[in-house]
Amino acid sequence: MRVAVVGAAGMIGRKLIAQLLGAGALAGHEIEAVHAFDVVTPTAQRGAVSVTATAIDITTMAGANAVLATDPDVIYHLAAVVSGEAEADFAKGYRVNVDGTRTLLEACRAATEAGASPPRMVFTSSIAVFGGQLPDVIGDDHHLSPQTSYGTQKVIGEQLVQDYTRRGFVDGVSVRLPTICIRPGAPNKAASGFYSSILREPLQGQPAVIPVAADLRHTFASPRAAVSSLVRAATLNSAAIGSTRSLTLPGLSATISEQLAALERVAGADVAALVRREPDPAIEAIVEGWPRALAAERAIALGFEAESSFDEIIAVFQEDELGH
Amino acid sequence: MRVAVVGAAGMIGRKLIAQLLGAGALAGHEIEAVHAFDVVTPTAQRGAVSVTATAIDITTMAGANAVLATDPDVIYHLAAVVSGEAEADFAKGYRVNVDGTRTLLEACRAATEAGASPPRMVFTSSIAVFGGQLPDVIGDDHHLSPQTSYGTQKVIGEQLVQDYTRRGFVDGVSVRLPTICIRPGAPNKAASGFYSSILREPLQGQPAVIPVAADLRHTFASPRAAVSSLVRAATLNSAAIGSTRSLTLPGLSATISEQLAALERVAGADVAALVRREPDPAIEAIVEGWPRALAAERAIALGFEAESSFDEIIAVFQEDELGH
Repeated sequence: MRVAVVGAAGMIGRKLIAQLLGAGALAGHEIEAVHAFDVVTPTAQRGAVSVTATAIDITTMAGANAVLATDPDVIYHLAAVVSGEAEADFAKGYRVNVDGTRTLLEACRAATEAGASPPRMVFTSSIAVFGGQLPDVIGDDHHLSPQTSYGTQKVIGEQLVQDYTRRGFVDGVSVRLPTICIRPGAPNKAASGFYSSILREPLQGQPAVIPVAADLRHTFASPRAAVSSLVRAATLNSAAIGSTRSLTLPGLSATISEQLAALERVAGADVAALVRREPDPAIEAIVEGWPRALAAERAIALGFEAESSFDEIIAVFQEDELGH
Repeated sequence: MRVAVVGAAGMIGRKLIAQLLGAGALAGHEIEAVHAFDVVTPTAQRGAVSVTATAIDITTMAGANAVLATDPDVIYHLAAVVSGEAEADFAKGYRVNVDGTRTLLEACRAATEAGASPPRMVFTSSIAVFGGQLPDVIGDDHHLSPQTSYGTQKVIGEQLVQDYTRRGFVDGVSVRLPTICIRPGAPNKAASGFYSSILREPLQGQPAVIPVAADLRHTFASPRAAVSSLVRAATLNSAAIGSTRSLTLPGLSATISEQLAALERVAGADVAALVRREPDPAIEAIVEGWPRALAAERAIALGFEAESSFDEIIAVFQEDELGH
């Protein structure tokens, strides 16, 4: 089993590779090699198997062909310009998120047309594909109506994965990840960044600001749950997935108040007191249209899981990032 | 009012230009010029206003910039590789239907970033965006699940039009046309071609073959109704359209039997007897998943119309093509 990870330098990419190296197997097969790709050379991780780390430009055929040259059984396509940056830099968002995905799929087409078996491709989509007037709980067949360039680009990526799969050029699965929380490290340019910082900063003794209303509801999964989902997505039997290759993953639906109550339960009132409200109308306008809860019935039936409380999500952060 | 028509050499493009030249006005403004573009030089039509005809490659920035160089108030983007050909030639379908649309939108972005007002773009999408398990009547918010490369490419085009409109680079409207019937002239490479030929051929004394079951239901509009819809789409007030820029247009829902009954009523039993059934499993497999009826509530509220009987659709063909 050879695994290629495109977007390996990002937070999820690094955690995924660590998980793969730790497990040593994927989908019941021993992992023979993990090939890590990103626009910057990913940090090489050590393990019992061969690991390479290569800088590529995924928007070029040379970059995409370098991925296929490793003869991967599974390709994780995690590379993306995130929401805030895709909105700020229109051309870059389309270049990386649309052209990059298309180029990688074209490389898969060339490989399969030359006789290779279609590799499993796991494409990380997002709940940003949903927007506009949303129901309290979004069903699996809810229509896609993104309100951002990032969401639009993810819809296009899903459509490409679907059609290239139908044509036999790849064996793709698009997983719509809920908002990942608690992200470790420095904030990225995603508009959802505050959802992590209002917990991450206080847990490390720093103040944090809540830019939105306390009753705002949204849907979450920990980085650990996201990585488990990516592993599961590579493991799924093609027939079990069926012809619809996009899956909305389950998430924990919670309000800001519920996040803070969990913070106080887990870390105490002094820590929770480090958070103060300071409404930011610009951020409120962006996030008020975001999904509040996801039915995710197909994904749950296929064995995908998220946390069931924010206490758990905080505990994952403490265990995986703070060494508790 | 300057109008650019991209895909002007096709059947709908030619009829649209004839209509515009005949009316002399669009959206209440006198038409000053009509600029016709296609991959082959469109036939220049005569009228009271300036008409140009230019061959371009819409997949190149030079081609798209040639359209914008005419400083259009309205751009009709009708250029497409049709369903059968997009399935047979995967790369060509993506090149024309996806890259061509993106390139044209990029030229609009460059023009608006240089200070031009965003032109109204009318993009012809298709009911091929719908597929899989469909309800008897498809609502405006039904999820898009194309089952062909053509349908996938139309979804992607709609998403691009939506996002470029949201960003102010164009003032776009995507109209999902029902199957056009009765198409004049020779069959094109669309899988829906038989729906026209089973009426067109007998009305001109020729035999025809029905490759599908008599109770198969589908949804139709005449070329004249399609052109009226394209005129209306250019006329719509941006605020009236709202933020969702894709519209499912109304169609006449009818079975093969109803088509043939209308043929017999309008043209007599001898003409209807020229049609014989000869099931083609390949065509049946493609069309059995097609929409049976469309609610089209938003489009109807905005004034779009289709015929209300197949007798009317046949009469339109007789008037517009046979000179009755």
